[in-house]
Amino acid sequence: MRAARYYDRGDIRIEDIPEPAVGPGQVGIDVAWCGICGTDLHEYADGPIFVPPAGHPHPISHEDAPITLGHEMSGVVTSLGAGVDDLTVGDHVVVEPYILYDDVDTGPTSTDYHLSKDMNFIGLGGCGGGLGEKIAVKRRWVHKISSDIPLDQAALIEPLSVGYHAVDRSDAIAGDTVLITGAGPIGLLTAAVCKARGLTTIISEPSPLRRQKAADTGVGDHILDPTSQDVVAETFALTGGRGADAGFECTSVQPALDTLFDALKPTGVLVVVSIWGHPGTLDMQKLVLKEIDMRGTIAYVNSHPDTIKLVEEGKVDLAPFITGKIGLDHLIDEGFDTLIHRNETAVKILVSPSGAGL
Amino acid sequence: MRAARYYDRGDIRIEDIPEPAVGPGQVGIDVAWCGICGTDLHEYADGPIFVPPAGHPHPISHEDAPITLGHEMSGVVTSLGAGVDDLTVGDHVVVEPYILYDDVDTGPTSTDYHLSKDMNFIGLGGCGGGLGEKIAVKRRWVHKISSDIPLDQAALIEPLSVGYHAVDRSDAIAGDTVLITGAGPIGLLTAAVCKARGLTTIISEPSPLRRQKAADTGVGDHILDPTSQDVVAETFALTGGRGADAGFECTSVQPALDTLFDALKPTGVLVVVSIWGHPGTLDMQKLVLKEIDMRGTIAYVNSHPDTIKLVEEGKVDLAPFITGKIGLDHLIDEGFDTLIHRNETAVKILVSPSGAGL
Repeated sequence: MRAARYYDRGDIRIEDIPEPAVGPGQVGIDVAWCGICGTDLHEYADGPIFVPPAGHPHPISHEDAPITLGHEMSGVVTSLGAGVDDLTVGDHVVVEPYILYDDVDTGPTSTDYHLSKDMNFIGLGGCGGGLGEKIAVKRRWVHKISSDIPLDQAALIEPLSVGYHAVDRSDAIAGDTVLITGAGPIGLLTAAVCKARGLTTIISEPSPLRRQKAADTGVGDHILDPTSQDVVAETFALTGGRGADAGFECTSVQPALDTLFDALKPTGVLVVVSIWGHPGTLDMQKLVLKEIDMRGTIAYVNSHPDTIKLVEEGKVDLAPFITGKIGLDHLIDEGFDTLIHRNETAVKILVSPSGAGL
Repeated sequence: MRAARYYDRGDIRIEDIPEPAVGPGQVGIDVAWCGICGTDLHEYADGPIFVPPAGHPHPISHEDAPITLGHEMSGVVTSLGAGVDDLTVGDHVVVEPYILYDDVDTGPTSTDYHLSKDMNFIGLGGCGGGLGEKIAVKRRWVHKISSDIPLDQAALIEPLSVGYHAVDRSDAIAGDTVLITGAGPIGLLTAAVCKARGLTTIISEPSPLRRQKAADTGVGDHILDPTSQDVVAETFALTGGRGADAGFECTSVQPALDTLFDALKPTGVLVVVSIWGHPGTLDMQKLVLKEIDMRGTIAYVNSHPDTIKLVEEGKVDLAPFITGKIGLDHLIDEGFDTLIHRNETAVKILVSPSGAGL
């Protein structure tokens, strides 16, 4: 089968590799679609980061580069390993792409398996990837979805789960107003979850093209331009002078962090969703005198079932976030290069590893 | 009566002023003891900060400098204003020293009255102060205490409430292990609350004299020297490799913040108790990848009743924290100057405004 294999920074190759064996407790999946994630771009441009470099196998997967990329995948079940009796061949599924030690508690009440030691992701740390035609995944990480959800949209359930967990971290409830800085893919999908959960969204984004995308996808109740508008004053005006109940930092830039600190109400919660490559500077007095809660969030933990439900119930329409569909042969030129160099208009580019969906 | 009056930076005068009238809804109190707070020192050395400067009256108290200082007070009820019928002359009381607008919800379920607009403190923003012989205080801010609590110790209930609220902010529960950076007055009193609430305390403090005080007061289960010990490694060793459940930053220095980020477990809560005069630098990746909650805390909100209970039940012994007792005439030379220049051995210096307690 064909797969996109990460060898090293700037070196991703489309290769023929053996199909994966479906072991006991595993589910064999034909990948329908796999999204390209910002993390994949980081590995390509600046990595290896999550990918275990050649000669340094990951302690759980025992694999090292080259590894098959791709962790935002949807597909169809094609075979069931020994002991798997609660799925059927033909089921539509998505993957929660974790690589964890076997002794980690991944039960439905766990709130921290995603933070366990040496955690990595399928499609980055080994165990196959969604940018290959087929994959075998441990039953725990396979989530059945309604066949009413188009499989292309279903590939966005993984990044949507990131937004879902971020909103969980904010403790925001229906009726609250939140300020989201940044309308990149994660900012938009976080906003989509906010809307689906009954929150009012204010989005601050300097790029006109991204503001337009926020408007087109319908996830921004109020869309502000921080280069020409006073986002803090507007937020106070939109909340009757109270300030935002919660904020989501989705930019990795300092001015956004400063704006959120000023725009939040006292006791407001600031969730940092973006991965910063540099230290942040914090006005510690504001943190103290407003009793701000500043919370990191990463990936998802038991978030997929509720995220899938939002999509199945039609509370989130994922179609507008798909801005491109390509085959494996154009992964770099039409995929990675587009996202790296024209990232103001592209939100999510989907890859059909077999080409069947094109 | 005699009182310590703040005129301006470096200018505090002991003066004779009229006794306060006890208006409707107020309680007349003979001040027994009043502690000197770090905030008072800041006003003296760097202020006015909370004190409304002459010509700029505070919007709620309508007072400006000179104002009577002192907000950590205990005393005895001497008169009751019209409408106050749930206290008795002779009751022992402490004051929760807030100046708030009348329309702020200060009910027993409020969690944010201390963050309301223009909030200030009795003894800083006007309304009299504990460094005067008598004071008249709105009934809402007077808390009756058992006469079994010595009045000198009772003057420490206000700063102990700061620690109580900080521990509330941490969500730490009995059995948890917490790391406290800094064994100054607030670090020690926060540790005292932690111990009283069943937490295991690790205290990191570079000053040998302060480490000794932490040992003498019995509030540190483990006392570490960050100049010679690896506090992060020790914390992991003391928690079976897990990391601290919560941390309290009581130093205002960057290395302490960095240590806390490293020593906390994933999902750990870092409470910033100290008031920083400069920005902090934050490793945003650690905040995100460990899902740290970093929370500011200031003063107290509905914390006094439970704090008083801890003292009444003998779960906190406040006696060891009293390191000096003086009269008003020695407020500057034996009080402020001692705390500013010999602050490694002094924890809490109490003032008897009338001299009756000396």
